[in-house]
Amino acid sequence: MNERSVSDMGEWALIESIRRHLPDPPAGEIWSGDDAAVLEHGSERLVLTTDVIVEHLDFDLAYSPPQSIGSKAVAVNASDVAAMGARPRWSVATLTLPRDTSGDVVDGFARGMAEEAGRIHAALVGGDISEGRYLSLSVAMVGTLEGPPVTRSGAGVGDIICVTGSLGGAAAGLHMLREGVDGKEEHSALKARQLTPHARSIEGPLLAPFATAMIDVSDGLLADLGHVLDASQVGCRVDPERVPLDPALSGVDLPRSALELALTGGEDLELLFTLPPGELDGARSALHDTGTPLSVIGEIVESGRTVGDRTLDSWKDKGWEHLQRR
Amino acid sequence: MNERSVSDMGEWALIESIRRHLPDPPAGEIWSGDDAAVLEHGSERLVLTTDVIVEHLDFDLAYSPPQSIGSKAVAVNASDVAAMGARPRWSVATLTLPRDTSGDVVDGFARGMAEEAGRIHAALVGGDISEGRYLSLSVAMVGTLEGPPVTRSGAGVGDIICVTGSLGGAAAGLHMLREGVDGKEEHSALKARQLTPHARSIEGPLLAPFATAMIDVSDGLLADLGHVLDASQVGCRVDPERVPLDPALSGVDLPRSALELALTGGEDLELLFTLPPGELDGARSALHDTGTPLSVIGEIVESGRTVGDRTLDSWKDKGWEHLQRR
Repeated sequence: MNERSVSDMGEWALIESIRRHLPDPPAGEIWSGDDAAVLEHGSERLVLTTDVIVEHLDFDLAYSPPQSIGSKAVAVNASDVAAMGARPRWSVATLTLPRDTSGDVVDGFARGMAEEAGRIHAALVGGDISEGRYLSLSVAMVGTLEGPPVTRSGAGVGDIICVTGSLGGAAAGLHMLREGVDGKEEHSALKARQLTPHARSIEGPLLAPFATAMIDVSDGLLADLGHVLDASQVGCRVDPERVPLDPALSGVDLPRSALELALTGGEDLELLFTLPPGELDGARSALHDTGTPLSVIGEIVESGRTVGDRTLDSWKDKGWEHLQRR
Repeated sequence: MNERSVSDMGEWALIESIRRHLPDPPAGEIWSGDDAAVLEHGSERLVLTTDVIVEHLDFDLAYSPPQSIGSKAVAVNASDVAAMGARPRWSVATLTLPRDTSGDVVDGFARGMAEEAGRIHAALVGGDISEGRYLSLSVAMVGTLEGPPVTRSGAGVGDIICVTGSLGGAAAGLHMLREGVDGKEEHSALKARQLTPHARSIEGPLLAPFATAMIDVSDGLLADLGHVLDASQVGCRVDPERVPLDPALSGVDLPRSALELALTGGEDLELLFTLPPGELDGARSALHDTGTPLSVIGEIVESGRTVGDRTLDSWKDKGWEHLQRR
């Protein structure tokens, strides 16, 4: 019996309370606990993941155009697929709508979902709609793997820690949107980073042959790195000066330092991964045609978790945990 | 531009407004418009479907134990998979929860989902949880096909119309639950039919080699038959005396006639399918080991839709359409 409310329990305890009802996967498959499940289909491998976004919590029509909400719902799933090293293929969506929702809002959701799904070749192939007291949008996505999946648990001592692109933009953009800050090109760039993020769908499969562990940056760089360290049972040494800041962060007023946003902000949908140092050139070459930057931000050590001269834990509770957030 | 509200539009207009943003599927695949999407993966075929259920609309904790809600969320997806002739394999779920939801409710949801998923071998392999203003549960399911899919569009003139099991029980059960009617064995049986329906997961793949068209009975026998007739561009002659009534309907007070419940009630999760008459013996033999009854209820004709001496349309608007329902 568990009479505590879910907000007292928090998201992780809640997930654990669900997970204990599930059987263990057969050898070769991965069920819950990583970015996406890995499944064996004949001689092929699939990945399967799902994410739900909810009005007033994950988005707000006051500052999010419906089209960007649809686009982002697809992108967050594609990001989980990419983090396994898989290619997105198909998606389905469910929508709950208040009765007074305008047809234009639904049209915008659909347009955004279809556009982002088309861009990354993750065709939206079906769905379901129900009345609801507020808007929510749940997407499930199937991807295919051409080689072994990249899990969170493979980081080895001596590996280097890398990240694609740049960080902190999505969190800064949320601030700009909420406060209605405007006027500079950087403001628009940061808002777009929050509203219509794009998953690293091409980069994930390209990095898969080199990476020992991978995760997408959705909760925040350090929170997500923590998930990798937990799963791999290792420590880290991160050099904060090497963390790639979103270039638009300079030259605008920010609610917190650019570094803090980059380390804890979340929702950037970049890929965080580990590599044996000898694989770095290969990984860089693999990304060459995409133009996507790759930054080395630290290394995996046996134990201890440090970020410059602070501990990783000292940044804790600044990451993103849903049910305890407000 | 569409400034009408979604409740003015209704579910079908709404789905059409979404569908027009989606590209056409490649040859050999089926996207929206059937019970589940059919996808080609290498030399194999997958099906993919999703359904969302919402508190106060699809279930009510006042009379539904959380465990049965979880079970039913899995069953309705499995029923869509079965209606394509596919075998359920894997599922994922998203949950939105008010902050004050008790851990026991979540535990019940998870237990029910895991139990039903285990029963039909559609392992629950992952999910996502978010805060929400009320409870909703969205499940997506992947199935595998061993032969060609059975669509809604293959019914041919001269085919016979068949249905598995019995009908009307789920709708009667909802009435018993809402009114708190109790005391007889039949009441319990009908309530169970509403609370914890089981999809015809074994029967769907067994019937697939024989059926020309198939759909699951979720909206109501005649509403679902209408979907098959629309897709196949044919008519029907249904003999109401041959429609198999749930045996528990006799001997209890009902809000409407047993026949009306069976024809329009919905949620029975039986399979409705068409066969060339020469395939009937084969289909009966295929189901033999399951013990599941198969009833012939009519035939496919070139045009016109009759149910005894009435038209099928005269039963219209008694079926189930979500956003206009209340």
